[in-house]
Amino acid sequence: MTIALSSDTTAGGLPDGPRTCPAGYRQSYPAIERNPPPFDVPALQRLLDGEYSEIRTSIKTLLSQPEFAYPEAPDLARYRATVLHWTRQVAATGLGRTFMPASVGGEQNLPKFIAAFETFGYHDLSLLIKLGVQFGLFAGSIQRLGTEYHHMKYLPAAATTELLGCFAMTEIGHGSNVQGLKTSAVFQAETDGFIVHTPSFSAGKNYIGNAGEHARLATVFAQLEVQGQHHGVHAFLVPIRDAAGRPLPGITIADNGLKMGLNGVDNGRLWFDRVHVPRREMLNRFAEVSPDGNYRSAIKNPGVRFFTMIGTLVSGRISIAASANSVAKSALTIAIRYGARRRQFGPPTAREETLLLDFPAHQMKLMPLLANAYALDFALKRMVRLNETAGPDQTREIETSAAALKAFATWNTTATVQACREACGGEGYLAVNRLAALRADTDIFTTFEGDNTVLMQLVAKNLLTELSGKVKGMPRLRRAAWLAQEQLTVLAPRQTLLKFHAGTAHLLHSSVQAMYLRLRERCLLLRHASAFQRLMAREKLDAYTAFLRLQPELLELAHAFVARTIQETFIEAIAPLENRPLQSALKRLADLFAVGHLYEQRAWYLENGVFSRRKSEALGRLQQRLCREVRGEAVALTDAFGIPDACLAAPIAL
Amino acid sequence: MTIALSSDTTAGGLPDGPRTCPAGYRQSYPAIERNPPPFDVPALQRLLDGEYSEIRTSIKTLLSQPEFAYPEAPDLARYRATVLHWTRQVAATGLGRTFMPASVGGEQNLPKFIAAFETFGYHDLSLLIKLGVQFGLFAGSIQRLGTEYHHMKYLPAAATTELLGCFAMTEIGHGSNVQGLKTSAVFQAETDGFIVHTPSFSAGKNYIGNAGEHARLATVFAQLEVQGQHHGVHAFLVPIRDAAGRPLPGITIADNGLKMGLNGVDNGRLWFDRVHVPRREMLNRFAEVSPDGNYRSAIKNPGVRFFTMIGTLVSGRISIAASANSVAKSALTIAIRYGARRRQFGPPTAREETLLLDFPAHQMKLMPLLANAYALDFALKRMVRLNETAGPDQTREIETSAAALKAFATWNTTATVQACREACGGEGYLAVNRLAALRADTDIFTTFEGDNTVLMQLVAKNLLTELSGKVKGMPRLRRAAWLAQEQLTVLAPRQTLLKFHAGTAHLLHSSVQAMYLRLRERCLLLRHASAFQRLMAREKLDAYTAFLRLQPELLELAHAFVARTIQETFIEAIAPLENRPLQSALKRLADLFAVGHLYEQRAWYLENGVFSRRKSEALGRLQQRLCREVRGEAVALTDAFGIPDACLAAPIAL
Repeated sequence: MTIALSSDTTAGGLPDGPRTCPAGYRQSYPAIERNPPPFDVPALQRLLDGEYSEIRTSIKTLLSQPEFAYPEAPDLARYRATVLHWTRQVAATGLGRTFMPASVGGEQNLPKFIAAFETFGYHDLSLLIKLGVQFGLFAGSIQRLGTEYHHMKYLPAAATTELLGCFAMTEIGHGSNVQGLKTSAVFQAETDGFIVHTPSFSAGKNYIGNAGEHARLATVFAQLEVQGQHHGVHAFLVPIRDAAGRPLPGITIADNGLKMGLNGVDNGRLWFDRVHVPRREMLNRFAEVSPDGNYRSAIKNPGVRFFTMIGTLVSGRISIAASANSVAKSALTIAIRYGARRRQFGPPTAREETLLLDFPAHQMKLMPLLANAYALDFALKRMVRLNETAGPDQTREIETSAAALKAFATWNTTATVQACREACGGEGYLAVNRLAALRADTDIFTTFEGDNTVLMQLVAKNLLTELSGKVKGMPRLRRAAWLAQEQLTVLAPRQTLLKFHAGTAHLLHSSVQAMYLRLRERCLLLRHASAFQRLMAREKLDAYTAFLRLQPELLELAHAFVARTIQETFIEAIAPLENRPLQSALKRLADLFAVGHLYEQRAWYLENGVFSRRKSEALGRLQQRLCREVRGEAVALTDAFGIPDACLAAPIAL
Repeated sequence: MTIALSSDTTAGGLPDGPRTCPAGYRQSYPAIERNPPPFDVPALQRLLDGEYSEIRTSIKTLLSQPEFAYPEAPDLARYRATVLHWTRQVAATGLGRTFMPASVGGEQNLPKFIAAFETFGYHDLSLLIKLGVQFGLFAGSIQRLGTEYHHMKYLPAAATTELLGCFAMTEIGHGSNVQGLKTSAVFQAETDGFIVHTPSFSAGKNYIGNAGEHARLATVFAQLEVQGQHHGVHAFLVPIRDAAGRPLPGITIADNGLKMGLNGVDNGRLWFDRVHVPRREMLNRFAEVSPDGNYRSAIKNPGVRFFTMIGTLVSGRISIAASANSVAKSALTIAIRYGARRRQFGPPTAREETLLLDFPAHQMKLMPLLANAYALDFALKRMVRLNETAGPDQTREIETSAAALKAFATWNTTATVQACREACGGEGYLAVNRLAALRADTDIFTTFEGDNTVLMQLVAKNLLTELSGKVKGMPRLRRAAWLAQEQLTVLAPRQTLLKFHAGTAHLLHSSVQAMYLRLRERCLLLRHASAFQRLMAREKLDAYTAFLRLQPELLELAHAFVARTIQETFIEAIAPLENRPLQSALKRLADLFAVGHLYEQRAWYLENGVFSRRKSEALGRLQQRLCREVRGEAVALTDAFGIPDACLAAPIAL
């Protein structure tokens, strides 16, 4: 929602003139042209809703109630108040307890919570983020980093929003580099507590959601020091406001003020001036300090301990990716429906002008993004399941996939909303059609919960680490030979006639697509791992510097990884479907995803002799053909998202 | 500027808490790290300012005055009022008369007006657009489509803003397709005038700047009908409000309401209910109707007449492109300066963390965009000169170049502001750092003054038309043979050893770069022209349908055209420079532009056998190296833009 406007609250802030057209006209657009869908739309929606259709439906019902209607033009204070009110309404449904432990009356059902969060992505995004801060970050940190004392003391009140809180990790001078943050927590035996302190301006906590106005308690991340020993970043519960909302002694709070979007969330900065925190308020699941000042942790390696704590944030990344994809779905629904009713230009002889969706360039703009939204839907569902069932040996796999999907999904949302805005022309620029708010509200998704570029580096680093685990122990020469041999094996297809094969059936074969996607990922991994080794061995660089030198190449590897995994998951998800027409519609989207990606990356395949010119050009033609085919089903494919009209709200799409 | 906020006008709308950090800290970022620039920064600024440095400086002085400070949090009504007040202040300096004819006391200096407009692009963009609407579109249409009667009657009052007006072309149902608009103007001999009428809801004029609240007179584009004969689109001056601001009888005005950005401009919709307009109020430079109902025009062909009228809009496209590039410069200045002060991560042994600008991925994100901004600066200056000096035989050349540059520049601005926002992380999301407003305000630049995709189609169409002029008269077989022969000639370099040449000196040779850019453009033109001919000849398609079928390919051609022309102009502009260090800094940017473009399009060069793998990969390495080199001068290169601190305003950049 765009923030506005006038101090005159009754007029909606718009001066002058009637808001509608003259009485004589029917104020409407032509009907949306719906081809009879070749598949069962409700069946597809059921497939997308999955096993959590009940909570999705009940949230949609809630959000369709009049009190959840987007306010036309609130000022900042009223917008924040509205979002807080909505947050409390949502809490009253029991949502906050969905993922909490049974000991506090919770359902311990994280997948259900994520399904709910995904559904809130169809509505006002300030509400989504407020819920995410209160339940996912604040209550979530207490649940995951704390122990029973903290659970019993805080979670019930957090679930009802009686206790509002915030998650104070990021600092002005340290965003993505959490290990480098500067806020300190020094143990003081004589008071049986910690002194939490902000040593400088730039160590102030920044962009903290809920901190600007509403939070009373903060989960604060600080460098723990016990008896002169530094133990790295740990989390502490620090009260920041009294019951009347006044900052407590030693706490300085500054409002972050207006933002590009998400203005219904009160972000703020926090500084601590030697604030005393009782020892028990340290979140001590992974480490604690005894009254006599002994630091104890079951995890001996400080690096491992840090990443274990931070690793509990992984569900936040999955949730953000899922809700970002909901926004992409909203934007696509708006733009595709508008494209199916708005006409422009046409052959001189035609009775009617051409529908926007019938322009090939329009199809090329929107259809690949529709395929991405579907592909991500299945990839994120698999991620949620994996996160539930994974054993401790899969921690890195989870971290890698969640980071990659969060980055891919949020970048994809930014690109999608942008393309949809342009595809709707001037209508897309009017606030009433909602793309403005979707665009502004989600722009920060690529930055928060881990900056996307930093996350993609993490992906690449994990892939290198995994490989190095495999070759560990090999002598250097042997390792070099192994890497070279692997690379040759991977690139074997270029030695064969396969590279000249440009037939449609071949290119539409899922396993052929998968083979090419895997080939590139694998080859980049082996090549960059060798380059990394060489930089360290020959130029005597430390790992950080070698990594920095190869940064663009390693980011390329991370992109190849995520494309490959998404395609594989998509194929896995549709293989068992028994509803053939549905399966074939989804297969077309999977084809568009794979073919589009291969075509986009064709320069690499050409450079490496994997594709012939004929094959490369055939992929381009095939992509256009798939866009044309998907266009025929596009409106039905957006209908299957099942976004309530009350949430969509854009007049051009209804 | 982001629109906000509270009904409490004194508090700036921000509830709760102090707005600054605790007293004990110095509230600031580390200093911006400025390498000693290897060239004379003021000399570069003088080069960029060109012959209109005087007006640029005086506008910067005006905009730096306190009353032009960005208001912190106006509501919509106050924001519109502020922008109107600013508009009147600017008019008081005489700006409105800059391009007007001498007969009304004008300077007849369009290049100076465009230089001014470009400078306003550094400030609030609602002011820019309000000025553009009032002077460029409204007064401009009277000047260019009207005759002395209209000039004398309206221009003096328009120049002072005593008379505010609007430009009513676009309709709800017809944006880019102006020839298809539905508002009618039927000549009525008995009243010696026209009946201007809106036949349907979707024929209502839409997004009309100044129409929402302030305009009293409108230039209305309507289908002229005289004695049952249709003569196509013509322009009429229609009063829409009385002196008190009330809509006149027969005029329905609806406010367009909140938009993604530019909320200081009052856009509106207009419907006309059989409004009588005296005959003299038709803008009659190119056509007129006599009292007895005879339609006369010196231009006999209706298509030519229409494009002649519309062609006068070309300066609007140039102005928009120039001001869009100013926005890109502002965003780059903010992001590059922030990147030169903010540190994050670092090798374990280092005393300091790494500056953002020293990350290769950060350089790859920003440096090519810095090169684009410089490249566009020179391209647009050449465009302004060409537009001044061109003869009537250059009309198509001007139209083609203006359309291509408008599309390229505005898309580039969208991409640049987006990249800069991401490069500034959370800081980029705060309204105070201005990227939010730059992003939201310019998003519509890719749509208005001609949708970019439609403009790129126009470019491709003109290129095809130009080619067909050359081959006209050849018999079909001869023509086909000629096209095939040309194509072979163009692709000759692939037959030579040139394709294996991957040396840096070779790749940095301007004429080599130009040769490759030209080669691709020429080859696409010949190939797509042949395909177009084939579709018409073999499949008997009409030109519209054949064009539609080839739309993605033709858009590719238009992109190749604009890249080639920009590179050529850049090289031409720096060749005569005598200041060697300056020349070499600019040459590096030109190299980055050309190498970046060739690398981006390398798939095509590989597919067509023009590049070897070695050459393609060498371009990639060279692009990274150029980014690293430009990074060393990046802060100085933004200093040379000469954007006043008061306009820039972002705390992270000062």
